[in-house]
Amino acid sequence: MNKKKIAIVGASGYSGEVLVQLLLNHPHAELVAVTSRQNTGLTLAQVFPKFAGHPKSKAIRFSEPNAEVVTKQVDIAFLALPHGVAAEYAVPFLNAGCVVIDLSADFRLKSPEVYKEFYAHDHSAPDLLKKSVYGLPEIHREQIKKAMLIASPGCYPTSVLLPTIPLLKDGLIKPASIIADSLSGVSGAGRKAELDYLFCECNESMRPYGVPKHRHLSEIEEQLSLAAKKQVVAQFTPHLIPVNRGILTTLYLEPAKKLTQEEVAACYLKAYGNEPFVRLLEGKSLPDTKNVVGTNAIEIGWRLDPRTGRLIVMSALDNLVKGASGQAVQSMNIICGFPETAGLI
Amino acid sequence: MNKKKIAIVGASGYSGEVLVQLLLNHPHAELVAVTSRQNTGLTLAQVFPKFAGHPKSKAIRFSEPNAEVVTKQVDIAFLALPHGVAAEYAVPFLNAGCVVIDLSADFRLKSPEVYKEFYAHDHSAPDLLKKSVYGLPEIHREQIKKAMLIASPGCYPTSVLLPTIPLLKDGLIKPASIIADSLSGVSGAGRKAELDYLFCECNESMRPYGVPKHRHLSEIEEQLSLAAKKQVVAQFTPHLIPVNRGILTTLYLEPAKKLTQEEVAACYLKAYGNEPFVRLLEGKSLPDTKNVVGTNAIEIGWRLDPRTGRLIVMSALDNLVKGASGQAVQSMNIICGFPETAGLI
Amino acid sequence: MNKKKIAIVGASGYSGEVLVQLLLNHPHAELVAVTSRQNTGLTLAQVFPKFAGHPKSKAIRFSEPNAEVVTKQVDIAFLALPHGVAAEYAVPFLNAGCVVIDLSADFRLKSPEVYKEFYAHDHSAPDLLKKSVYGLPEIHREQIKKAMLIASPGCYPTSVLLPTIPLLKDGLIKPASIIADSLSGVSGAGRKAELDYLFCECNESMRPYGVPKHRHLSEIEEQLSLAAKKQVVAQFTPHLIPVNRGILTTLYLEPAKKLTQEEVAACYLKAYGNEPFVRLLEGKSLPDTKNVVGTNAIEIGWRLDPRTGRLIVMSALDNLVKGASGQAVQSMNIICGFPETAGLI
Amino acid sequence: MNKKKIAIVGASGYSGEVLVQLLLNHPHAELVAVTSRQNTGLTLAQVFPKFAGHPKSKAIRFSEPNAEVVTKQVDIAFLALPHGVAAEYAVPFLNAGCVVIDLSADFRLKSPEVYKEFYAHDHSAPDLLKKSVYGLPEIHREQIKKAMLIASPGCYPTSVLLPTIPLLKDGLIKPASIIADSLSGVSGAGRKAELDYLFCECNESMRPYGVPKHRHLSEIEEQLSLAAKKQVVAQFTPHLIPVNRGILTTLYLEPAKKLTQEEVAACYLKAYGNEPFVRLLEGKSLPDTKNVVGTNAIEIGWRLDPRTGRLIVMSALDNLVKGASGQAVQSMNIICGFPETAGLI
Repeated sequence: MNKKKIAIVGASGYSGEVLVQLLLNHPHAELVAVTSRQNTGLTLAQVFPKFAGHPKSKAIRFSEPNAEVVTKQVDIAFLALPHGVAAEYAVPFLNAGCVVIDLSADFRLKSPEVYKEFYAHDHSAPDLLKKSVYGLPEIHREQIKKAMLIASPGCYPTSVLLPTIPLLKDGLIKPASIIADSLSGVSGAGRKAELDYLFCECNESMRPYGVPKHRHLSEIEEQLSLAAKKQVVAQFTPHLIPVNRGILTTLYLEPAKKLTQEEVAACYLKAYGNEPFVRLLEGKSLPDTKNVVGTNAIEIGWRLDPRTGRLIVMSALDNLVKGASGQAVQSMNIICGFPETAGLI
Repeated sequence: MNKKKIAIVGASGYSGEVLVQLLLNHPHAELVAVTSRQNTGLTLAQVFPKFAGHPKSKAIRFSEPNAEVVTKQVDIAFLALPHGVAAEYAVPFLNAGCVVIDLSADFRLKSPEVYKEFYAHDHSAPDLLKKSVYGLPEIHREQIKKAMLIASPGCYPTSVLLPTIPLLKDGLIKPASIIADSLSGVSGAGRKAELDYLFCECNESMRPYGVPKHRHLSEIEEQLSLAAKKQVVAQFTPHLIPVNRGILTTLYLEPAKKLTQEEVAACYLKAYGNEPFVRLLEGKSLPDTKNVVGTNAIEIGWRLDPRTGRLIVMSALDNLVKGASGQAVQSMNIICGFPETAGLI
Repeated sequence: MNKKKIAIVGASGYSGEVLVQLLLNHPHAELVAVTSRQNTGLTLAQVFPKFAGHPKSKAIRFSEPNAEVVTKQVDIAFLALPHGVAAEYAVPFLNAGCVVIDLSADFRLKSPEVYKEFYAHDHSAPDLLKKSVYGLPEIHREQIKKAMLIASPGCYPTSVLLPTIPLLKDGLIKPASIIADSLSGVSGAGRKAELDYLFCECNESMRPYGVPKHRHLSEIEEQLSLAAKKQVVAQFTPHLIPVNRGILTTLYLEPAKKLTQEEVAACYLKAYGNEPFVRLLEGKSLPDTKNVVGTNAIEIGWRLDPRTGRLIVMSALDNLVKGASGQAVQSMNIICGFPETAGLI
Repeated sequence: MNKKKIAIVGASGYSGEVLVQLLLNHPHAELVAVTSRQNTGLTLAQVFPKFAGHPKSKAIRFSEPNAEVVTKQVDIAFLALPHGVAAEYAVPFLNAGCVVIDLSADFRLKSPEVYKEFYAHDHSAPDLLKKSVYGLPEIHREQIKKAMLIASPGCYPTSVLLPTIPLLKDGLIKPASIIADSLSGVSGAGRKAELDYLFCECNESMRPYGVPKHRHLSEIEEQLSLAAKKQVVAQFTPHLIPVNRGILTTLYLEPAKKLTQEEVAACYLKAYGNEPFVRLLEGKSLPDTKNVVGTNAIEIGWRLDPRTGRLIVMSALDNLVKGASGQAVQSMNIICGFPETAGLI
């Protein structure tokens, strides 16, 4: 199998760093270009000392994010750029016939109107919204296989959607009842020099933010609506927690009918029994982010509460792997026909 | 004003430590006895180097928890003992005419049956349950004034009850809709040598536990039912978070009728406008545990979600102060007729 | 006793925040002005929600740092400004007859040449260097009593000087042998929006910096030289550690003659036996920053190593209290004739 | 190449966990047995949920640590047992012709007398001390190739020895001058249910321990003496720091003659220029544990201080990888003739 040639555009943030790590070590991919305005000229080893042990880390240098130059070198471009910037970079890569896997929010929604409502500016390439595929492999694998433009899901949405969609599809829960309470590590805020994310502002702190209308609600609701085949409005509260990585989501759901623990288990087993990255927790275990950090796995556990009648579902994932770069590589594996777990743990 | 003489029975855990700190520095209280089986003979300064700067820390030595001896020395006894142990210690103090302020769960419930359901053993002094007063000053101040036996509330319950009770009393929310999602620092688990609470097991971890029927639900539901004047069953999910101190609770509530942000504000203002330890957040602020750690304050913030119709209320407190020892001292101040804020910040 | 009127100029950083806390609660001081360019117009409660429970926190508003206005209101000005900025602010306060207690490095050195060598620019008020007193109360108490301008010591220097000076004065150690290895919490870097101090860059990291010539060496060496009555050149290596507050310094010292553990103890007892904020550790105890954080105490412990002949001395303090704001208040207490421990724990 | 069959005896601690991770994914090794008294009967996936994604994690079950049974199944046994216990397990494996790689301190010293001095009990298999090889590949690679019994070095010793030995061998530093100041993450204390290692006792704390004669000094001094060809007595101070993983060591060394930065660089380049796991830092970089955690790399940086004449050398490694399990696998690779980097990053 010929190795696919890969570029990472905007590789200096936390998810860019994890992408570099995964693609440097991927058996069927060859990282040939990394771009970053502020790191131009530096080697991977200089920017990310952690990877200095990799033989290629001293050979690969960051270049200017010049799409025209980069398109000629690669088969696949990963965009790890800020929201709003990715859209313009995607066009030249797509025109040159490259597959584009975008980690930003720019192509995750089908509706430019909803995009504008949540992101407060017009979409710069609305035509592409129709062509993009929402890169949640466990849900959209068949469409991903044929996609040229992948909108890789957000970290919070992944933690909410994977536990919820099978229940909605099987009609086990009331769509209007969905409440998602999420906890995120600080890397979710990106590598940005802002006071709010200083060590002393985050350490020994727990705090909600973005209440009640966080941007990620837009893609959460669009995907839930698809699964429910009706418009879903959801409740979502993110919190900032002093860990580097991880998302823990607790979902409060009302059953659509009387449910048993076994029916829930059967629903999840049917949906995810063969999924390599979904870990359904049995017995007494409950999700813990420390069990998934550094991996592409999502842990899902659940409890029916006989006292309230509610179904409590909990999920844990690494916001930078299954919630970002690992999931993006998983989509690449599917598009390229590689084993879906290639280069991922 | 004569200083009240105080004993702390079982002063070697985290809430015992904070009690020592508060009572050593209290303007109207004189700490005269501290007991601890394992620390007998040691001075306060030896067990808690942090207080070694206090003049009395070298004079006060831990004694055996011999109630008969201690009762003769003091006016007030704080019990900072494990659940199930406090009940037996309370009796000799009460018989000797001392006020007892218990920080355990032993006297928080009125019903021995509910106690047994949640704590899995018979209550050892069921008659005292009728005499005890639930020590939540903002709700039960008048009863606390006359109490001889205070059951100081749990940390989670305080964070749930203070934001919820005014809404229930004013009929603004549906009692059956209450969902409380809580995050706790690790000191909430006590100073216990268990693998689960080792640094490496907690650091870089976020995890739920005790789902769906944590023991604290019993006192939460009893107090909510009192406020609602009907039986309330609530949803409560605790999570363990890598901070030393703090509880952050996010409440999901369904309005009983169409509500405005102003009506919610008016309800809270009426209930807590003059409360020295309740901080109602205005404007854009949301609760953050780092703003309350080390103080007896609880921060309460809220948002009505026009999209879902739900009312989201968030609270932050220090589990060892407002959630335990500070609140216990607040009850003491009330009982003794001291200014309610004496010795507290 | 009339309360002294106090201004804090530049009160928005971490040590400014602790100064506000200490002075709001000081029995003999009245905080009347706080300045901060970015917070002008806001109340203390708005900028520091943690102090919102204090009655004055809603009455005191930040003003522009206009020295002419502020000088008329106060007896004492604390300057909590960046290095290089404090010098210009000191002049109008001194001219108006106010006592100035400066927390920056601007007045800590006697020599403008050494200042320029370490701080890379000319000193803006070199004449004041002669008038300033280095505010280390345990060493310079008599001079502090009469001072109008206090240069409050740096956090690292305090942790190095207090354990070392008595040994030097008594001729117990070789001056050329002093090696100080120091660990600091992240608040030592100030509240600055820089990538290096983001949560994810500090958490799960341990790193040296400023090797081998950190700026604090200048004041360390000047004070060591004074004590040794000869020029001392010292080794000093700071490290950044993921805690909010605290400094732990380990000193490696060569005895000037054969020493016993008792002789070292006697030296320290003579120097610090009556000092309220110096805690000499006996028995098996070694310093731990968690025993001093939030207090003005410094813990000092020591071991003679019979195998190498070296004396190992270890100290722990809170960089924002004994290492900054607490020590500054201690100097104020001395100047004003208050009890030295007033408002401090 | 036939895969080597591997057992891990005592695989339930932190270094056992990392061994499992490395050997599950090793290209030339097949993990066939893991033992643990308390986990007997459980699968790898149950004990270490983090590895549940690996296909073998549900097939491999923990067995009783019955050496006679296990010896028949394997070519190589890794012992991840407490100090003092490993010695007895080694004998049956060696008798059965297995290679033994021991991660405890039991075989690291040549002298049973020194062992007794530092470990306070007689060695249970003193004859084996002569046969064991100290598994520091960069120093003893040739002996490792032929060894049947590897004593894999301690985490602190690795961080001290690799930066120091080349300088000693080349006569660049005075052997009597070596001072090692080390910081360790809490996993270094092992997975033990002790109060000292609870989250709340370690978080927001920095503290020295084991001063001045920590057990690891014995192997540090034996190896330094070998390199210096004379008896070396060293100074070593460990500190406990609130991170999960990592060791940062700062060395204070006196040059044996006038040195330049280039001579030091040349010495290190000669020693380690071709070493895959030693990263010599150039330019302004200094070691940071976050650059090595999760890898088998050690970072080494250095500065000559023109003011004091001392050479400051700093190193960073992951205590569980290069300081324990990764280094043990590196030795296995050498013994078996695999590429030395196989299965390691």
